[in-house]
Amino acid sequence: MTGYSEELLNSCRSVTTATLTTVMFKMGVVNTWIRGAFPLSGDSQRVAGPAFTLRFIPAREDLATPASWGSPKSTRMAVETMPEGCIAVVGADGCTDAGIFGDILCQRMRCRHVQALVTDGVVRDLEGIEETQLDVWANGAASPAAVASLTFANWQEPIGCGGVAIFPDDLIVADSDGAVVVPQVMVSEVIEAAVEMEVQEQWILEQIKNGAELPGLYPMNDKNRRRFEEERRRGSSPKNPG
Amino acid sequence: MTGYSEELLNSCRSVTTATLTTVMFKMGVVNTWIRGAFPLSGDSQRVAGPAFTLRFIPAREDLATPASWGSPKSTRMAVETMPEGCIAVVGADGCTDAGIFGDILCQRMRCRHVQALVTDGVVRDLEGIEETQLDVWANGAASPAAVASLTFANWQEPIGCGGVAIFPDDLIVADSDGAVVVPQVMVSEVIEAAVEMEVQEQWILEQIKNGAELPGLYPMNDKNRRRFEEERRRGSSPKNPG
Amino acid sequence: MTGYSEELLNSCRSVTTATLTTVMFKMGVVNTWIRGAFPLSGDSQRVAGPAFTLRFIPAREDLATPASWGSPKSTRMAVETMPEGCIAVVGADGCTDAGIFGDILCQRMRCRHVQALVTDGVVRDLEGIEETQLDVWANGAASPAAVASLTFANWQEPIGCGGVAIFPDDLIVADSDGAVVVPQVMVSEVIEAAVEMEVQEQWILEQIKNGAELPGLYPMNDKNRRRFEEERRRGSSPKNPG
Amino acid sequence: MTGYSEELLNSCRSVTTATLTTVMFKMGVVNTWIRGAFPLSGDSQRVAGPAFTLRFIPAREDLATPASWGSPKSTRMAVETMPEGCIAVVGADGCTDAGIFGDILCQRMRCRHVQALVTDGVVRDLEGIEETQLDVWANGAASPAAVASLTFANWQEPIGCGGVAIFPDDLIVADSDGAVVVPQVMVSEVIEAAVEMEVQEQWILEQIKNGAELPGLYPMNDKNRRRFEEERRRGSSPKNPG
Amino acid sequence: MTGYSEELLNSCRSVTTATLTTVMFKMGVVNTWIRGAFPLSGDSQRVAGPAFTLRFIPAREDLATPASWGSPKSTRMAVETMPEGCIAVVGADGCTDAGIFGDILCQRMRCRHVQALVTDGVVRDLEGIEETQLDVWANGAASPAAVASLTFANWQEPIGCGGVAIFPDDLIVADSDGAVVVPQVMVSEVIEAAVEMEVQEQWILEQIKNGAELPGLYPMNDKNRRRFEEERRRGSSPKNPG
Amino acid sequence: MTGYSEELLNSCRSVTTATLTTVMFKMGVVNTWIRGAFPLSGDSQRVAGPAFTLRFIPAREDLATPASWGSPKSTRMAVETMPEGCIAVVGADGCTDAGIFGDILCQRMRCRHVQALVTDGVVRDLEGIEETQLDVWANGAASPAAVASLTFANWQEPIGCGGVAIFPDDLIVADSDGAVVVPQVMVSEVIEAAVEMEVQEQWILEQIKNGAELPGLYPMNDKNRRRFEEERRRGSSPKNPG
Repeated sequence: MTGYSEELLNSCRSVTTATLTTVMFKMGVVNTWIRGAFPLSGDSQRVAGPAFTLRFIPAREDLATPASWGSPKSTRMAVETMPEGCIAVVGADGCTDAGIFGDILCQRMRCRHVQALVTDGVVRDLEGIEETQLDVWANGAASPAAVASLTFANWQEPIGCGGVAIFPDDLIVADSDGAVVVPQVMVSEVIEAAVEMEVQEQWILEQIKNGAELPGLYPMNDKNRRRFEEERRRGSSPKNPG
Repeated sequence: MTGYSEELLNSCRSVTTATLTTVMFKMGVVNTWIRGAFPLSGDSQRVAGPAFTLRFIPAREDLATPASWGSPKSTRMAVETMPEGCIAVVGADGCTDAGIFGDILCQRMRCRHVQALVTDGVVRDLEGIEETQLDVWANGAASPAAVASLTFANWQEPIGCGGVAIFPDDLIVADSDGAVVVPQVMVSEVIEAAVEMEVQEQWILEQIKNGAELPGLYPMNDKNRRRFEEERRRGSSPKNPG
Repeated sequence: MTGYSEELLNSCRSVTTATLTTVMFKMGVVNTWIRGAFPLSGDSQRVAGPAFTLRFIPAREDLATPASWGSPKSTRMAVETMPEGCIAVVGADGCTDAGIFGDILCQRMRCRHVQALVTDGVVRDLEGIEETQLDVWANGAASPAAVASLTFANWQEPIGCGGVAIFPDDLIVADSDGAVVVPQVMVSEVIEAAVEMEVQEQWILEQIKNGAELPGLYPMNDKNRRRFEEERRRGSSPKNPG
Repeated sequence: MTGYSEELLNSCRSVTTATLTTVMFKMGVVNTWIRGAFPLSGDSQRVAGPAFTLRFIPAREDLATPASWGSPKSTRMAVETMPEGCIAVVGADGCTDAGIFGDILCQRMRCRHVQALVTDGVVRDLEGIEETQLDVWANGAASPAAVASLTFANWQEPIGCGGVAIFPDDLIVADSDGAVVVPQVMVSEVIEAAVEMEVQEQWILEQIKNGAELPGLYPMNDKNRRRFEEERRRGSSPKNPG
Repeated sequence: MTGYSEELLNSCRSVTTATLTTVMFKMGVVNTWIRGAFPLSGDSQRVAGPAFTLRFIPAREDLATPASWGSPKSTRMAVETMPEGCIAVVGADGCTDAGIFGDILCQRMRCRHVQALVTDGVVRDLEGIEETQLDVWANGAASPAAVASLTFANWQEPIGCGGVAIFPDDLIVADSDGAVVVPQVMVSEVIEAAVEMEVQEQWILEQIKNGAELPGLYPMNDKNRRRFEEERRRGSSPKNPG
Repeated sequence: MTGYSEELLNSCRSVTTATLTTVMFKMGVVNTWIRGAFPLSGDSQRVAGPAFTLRFIPAREDLATPASWGSPKSTRMAVETMPEGCIAVVGADGCTDAGIFGDILCQRMRCRHVQALVTDGVVRDLEGIEETQLDVWANGAASPAAVASLTFANWQEPIGCGGVAIFPDDLIVADSDGAVVVPQVMVSEVIEAAVEMEVQEQWILEQIKNGAELPGLYPMNDKNRRRFEEERRRGSSPKNPG
């Protein structure tokens, strides 16, 4: 259970991350796409949920010991704290030569009903992770454990991930174009505008498929906007919400 | 319709980009492979056609407005100017955090019978683009629109793309190894030599499959060259053009 | 035939590269994962064998001639020197705009029963290479030949590959997480520990699937270790080697 | 002679590029600092003038000939077209292994009373350039000529330089922090605000030197703002323009 | 006043950062040198003091407002919290296109008797900072304010800086080779060994100046070690501490 | 003593590295400038001498031990093998976080009359190295020893350095623009052409200083070439060798 209603999350899952970035761009918020986080599996569904943040800093040999895996401020404790439905967002400083999590932690996240894992780093045990069926957005895989390159710092702090600031409980949406953050205070406004924009873009795409030209249509001029509104009223638009 | 004959373009489509780069290398032209442009779809056929160039420069907030999408010097007008059969080559300065085009522009390009899109940048609406069936060579996908990181400058100018200079109407060929440019004035000479080289390499590959050793065969010494020429005359080579 | 017994190589093939890096990390050897070498084909099996090293340096035009392909110190001669069962490891200085090998050399390696090709560079003739069925770990593909960016220096020397030092006859293991080196003098010790660790991790993963929590289990505390040892004695662990 | 009055340019030269970026940031224009353009000489004065843009694309061997230096669309012709007082801004695509200009072209620019050269690339003949006394902001030096890595495309076009869009006749200001662009339409507004801001920051800096604390002072709260305004009226501020 | 005695800090200031890294390397701690932090001024003395950490994350436009400069969790409040004698270590995620601090904050740090500023980022108002005489190790300068690229997260947390983990109150030492961290628990042991090593290296350097060969001397074999010990007892070594 | 005559080396020292790269470019050899090797000291004279190559590969912890400093294949033995007058060229794989050499090895090189050190890596003990007065071209400084990041492989092998292939005894020339290699077989031809080109460029520079325009002069057209030849015969050119 999270702070966002299932209805709102389902609305999120009906709009692309591309549309979300455009809506936020128009509101003046540009830097929302997490660089380096791509779907590891080809058939991932779109996910949406509140961010549960984890922060890594670089490794230092006096800290980088297997013993640290058992410490109270460990990735293990962080996983056990994750609420059902959250999306774990792991800031790995773009480190791509050590996997932040392997199959065992991913399996546990799956058992805890974590929705997805999003990171600008990489994972390990790629085959094992695929078996857990946890949805993962990452920058690939690497054999070494996190401890080889990273020190776990803390969870539920503001973090950087893929060049974007993520705060605990910001909304994360991820699909085949990658993962984006919607700042918590903007969520309602953004989702409402995004749902509307999807309807318009779907209509535009159909006009294009039927041979229409771009100028005046994308973006719409007044004439095309009137046509769109009229068709929508008539219910001929396939995605008409009415 | 383009400035290159269909016959010549078909010859192009019968030779690999690997062979084309080797032929041009022997002619002293080395820097012809567009870095960062890979086939987005696994089953792309090889394409060949004249370049239609587009040039982006970095974004500046006073220019980066949705209003700019309607301006006369917009990507929309560029698309409407693309001739049938061309290959759109988009210099995105290697920018990988904003998609130069999404599904709507790609759909329109498809309707205008543009052959393919080649860029050192990325696209957005990845799933929607796959539905348009436009062949795309790019460096992946990102959610944000071009306007978030780029300003459209102009079309049909000399551009840099993936560290290579591309002039309007240069020949572009792209396959699973990526995309290469053949300078317009060299096209006939290059294609002729490439077709010949493919025949030879095919013959060499068969010898290797039959257990032959590399030295003397690749490259061919005189003895092997005579064998090749003889077998070719006899028509025993599977790709013998005679 | 190689210096490692088939029995030892088969043990290697039963443990993941992730496990190998953890075992070596615990022994103080951290930098063993070859950056940039990923399986080109989705269904590659895990491979293990002794390294046969090749070293490239940058291209210089007075050296970068097709004639160099026939020289005694050429990649061709290197391929003809590779022993059956070896894994060719090619240090390409991370060069990603020229393919170190194409289909012809890969076909010859396959005919010589080379087990796999591992490189921090890229290959060319991607489709042709897939037809040879040689297993390849690389950083992708590019059309140009090596000669466009690289000069072949020598074989069976100590090399750098993907930021890791590789000596001739070190053990190489590669799977879906990438490729790792096990220094020759550590091989027995590492494999023995890795086989044991796989059994433990498999048992841990099962507990997690059954709903267990991470703390105390991963890593195991004394209580869980006793449970593990007991179940193992009873033979209830699926991977119990007894 | 340029389109900006000497009075305005002198005002520009009295404010730091740091202040200019802050003023533009408050107006919503963030991406104005040219990455990689640093003063080559330790004692450069601040310069301000209209941009004269030059654009390079990557080299291609069929174009990269010494003969190209004599072509009508050459860097030589561009230099001969530069108006007195302009600042040449050269987009070199961040290329740092070939010098865009050497001592001869810089000497000619100096003779034509060009104010400065700004580039995200590098220069060559470093010692010779220092003798010309042309002020240069660049990313260092390299021995090879531009032709080794770059093709000259055109002048007075919109360009990218250091990740920033520059249009002909935009205002360029450069000092020890680097070089910034002020979009032409914003120049008056920006300079006016910047001159005011410099006075305030100078006053704040004096308070800090006298032991004041930061909170409430930087940025100023109402109380401190009243103090500032009062002291300014009294003429006790050293930079009081009254 | 800090947790390290002045005597210990003075010992630190007598050994190079090069020696410190070698001593820690021999103790198994390798990753201690902060990448990208170089002395801005040519005549900086070596500094040593406890770390006061600051952490930035990337900018997001909804957070990146001038108003944020007045918030309770601001860089201003962090500066006002810095104890006398500390070294401020600022993790800027390697961001080099926005200055973390300008002349006003540096002046205030100087007034608070902060010893130095160390960052993997850059500063702004370079000339003004030099006037404050605060010692700065950074990656250069840039005109824009931090707010253009970064969000201030917090102070006195574990941070990453230049690829190294820094904890509050770790010891920082910086000289012309850059800046290194000595983990707090290792400080006494490291400094003691480093002081001894400096004496030995000074003696070795003198032998080399007098024409000695390297083998057997660096590192010392038994014979040379006896010579060194003997000369030291006699007091002929210039840095003999006795 | 080296394989090049002092007369030839003196001629080399009279031409800039910029001129050398242009001469070699005209002969088809482009990739000759060593990226990342800059003069550490502001007042370095131009140096010219035969390359003595050293090759590093990445560090691996089982090899990276202080003990390795005493092994027969160590940097120490390499230094003791360097002939008088050579220029040591060290391929450090562009590693910038560990110094390849410190003051002790540089002092020994100075005592052995090594002319200079050129590397794409960095050095350590920057102040100490300056005291040795050895001329160094490098990419800066770092505190850690080479062993922290690199393994010494061998000396007098073909190496890559700064993206350029260097063979033992190739000619190295370095000045304020950086360091270039002249392939051994081309040396006489290149130096002869470079000396001539310097005379011409000096004459052109004088014309420019006197107000001449670039077109027709740089490069020279027939009329200007005749003027140049005539003035040269008359002996009015300051650098006329006659």
